[in-house]
Amino acid sequence: MKKRPHILVTNDDGILAPGLAALVKVAGAIGEVVVVAPDSPQSGKGHAITIDEPLRINAVKAFGDIRAYECSGTPVDCVKLAMKVVEKDRPFDLCLSGINHGSNASINIIYSGTMSAAMEASLEGISSIGFSLLDYSFEADFEPCLPFLEAICRKSLEDGLGQTNLLNVNIPIDQIKGIRVCRQAEARWVEDFQEGKDPRGKKYYWLSGHFESTANENGTDLRALEEGYISVVPSMHDLTHYSAIAHLKGFEGLQV
Amino acid sequence: MKKRPHILVTNDDGILAPGLAALVKVAGAIGEVVVVAPDSPQSGKGHAITIDEPLRINAVKAFGDIRAYECSGTPVDCVKLAMKVVEKDRPFDLCLSGINHGSNASINIIYSGTMSAAMEASLEGISSIGFSLLDYSFEADFEPCLPFLEAICRKSLEDGLGQTNLLNVNIPIDQIKGIRVCRQAEARWVEDFQEGKDPRGKKYYWLSGHFESTANENGTDLRALEEGYISVVPSMHDLTHYSAIAHLKGFEGLQV
Repeated sequence: MKKRPHILVTNDDGILAPGLAALVKVAGAIGEVVVVAPDSPQSGKGHAITIDEPLRINAVKAFGDIRAYECSGTPVDCVKLAMKVVEKDRPFDLCLSGINHGSNASINIIYSGTMSAAMEASLEGISSIGFSLLDYSFEADFEPCLPFLEAICRKSLEDGLGQTNLLNVNIPIDQIKGIRVCRQAEARWVEDFQEGKDPRGKKYYWLSGHFESTANENGTDLRALEEGYISVVPSMHDLTHYSAIAHLKGFEGLQV
Repeated sequence: MKKRPHILVTNDDGILAPGLAALVKVAGAIGEVVVVAPDSPQSGKGHAITIDEPLRINAVKAFGDIRAYECSGTPVDCVKLAMKVVEKDRPFDLCLSGINHGSNASINIIYSGTMSAAMEASLEGISSIGFSLLDYSFEADFEPCLPFLEAICRKSLEDGLGQTNLLNVNIPIDQIKGIRVCRQAEARWVEDFQEGKDPRGKKYYWLSGHFESTANENGTDLRALEEGYISVVPSMHDLTHYSAIAHLKGFEGLQV
């Protein structure tokens, strides 16, 4: 009998988020699961790591017989601890992050704790997938998408991910028509800070804003989602803008 | 007389870091400067934003006549507040972040608050440059590199940055031989958590580790730095791994 794959499950919404429980269910059907997730919500933490203070990790009974730990740090801290402390002698075959409550398509990837956790595992050579459902509510219905997620995970394990080892998978809310492999759409957040005064009369600003798609043409994740498809974007950690190198060669001649 | 450029200066080491003062000096020689920087060190914060709590911003007298503000949030929060609150009616021509105390070359870019701040401004269409000196100490000597930084800023303003609007600039400690335009080297952090017990006997883990270059061949930032050159890497926020798309097309046929 083939050995069951060793799967790390994490997220950024915290150990109690329903999206995590849904993903644990998918992972449990496929392999042997270890959960290491933040002990509090960590949305928008990007690729933050905790340098200046110690981290705590506690075993919790949250998913029946599945080994699970809550961690005091960021999503990336959770992945580091999972690989280097919890399972230091046994590498993972797959890392699953999510299911995030809300979209991580397009530019959201750079702010996303969910995707940063997946990227961190991918840096260690582990095939990693971040999953996000386009529904921010705590009562989001994850059930309809689970068979698709299981199929994506099984295929990733069987066929590998080719030149990448990191997928950004986003899931539409309405009836799912299928899966599309896409590129990241151009978009931006338009901020609108709410200004207010605290009980002591001191001014504060609270981040608010709306998402603005600037180019969601064919082939992008935003377009696929809009049309009812799950978007799968192969992602990477090399941020070099290769085609910009030539123009900049003039910088090499700068004299001081 | 040509209008002096409007320059935002920020960092992740906080408003009191000597590297920020050095960069303010460079910026002040070129244009009209506004400083918005974190009120405490924010290293390793990546692209984190503050969603769940209000932000504070206070005017400070830290750089003579130059307008400066300290902010309670992350480096990315600082940039958002600078653009949307402090100077909401007057767009910046250039955003400078740093000078970071320590390297942001290679894979460090994804953990870096310095580079995330610059990237955030670049998302708004502002030419943005993150500067980092390969010296973690608070007493680092920034003086020798300042003429190079000024030359890079002036050229960026005069000639533009071509297809990108984001540069990751790292500076060697020893005598600077010149400037090289590079790609991001492959490398990783090898973690080694320090395990300990707090005064109440409760176990903790503290992140530690060393940087391991896995491929610093010719053309990479790590190689340039090793050979005594300032590395300039054009960077971007599109994380799509384009060449991996073809292999993954099989995912589109998955049936559930």
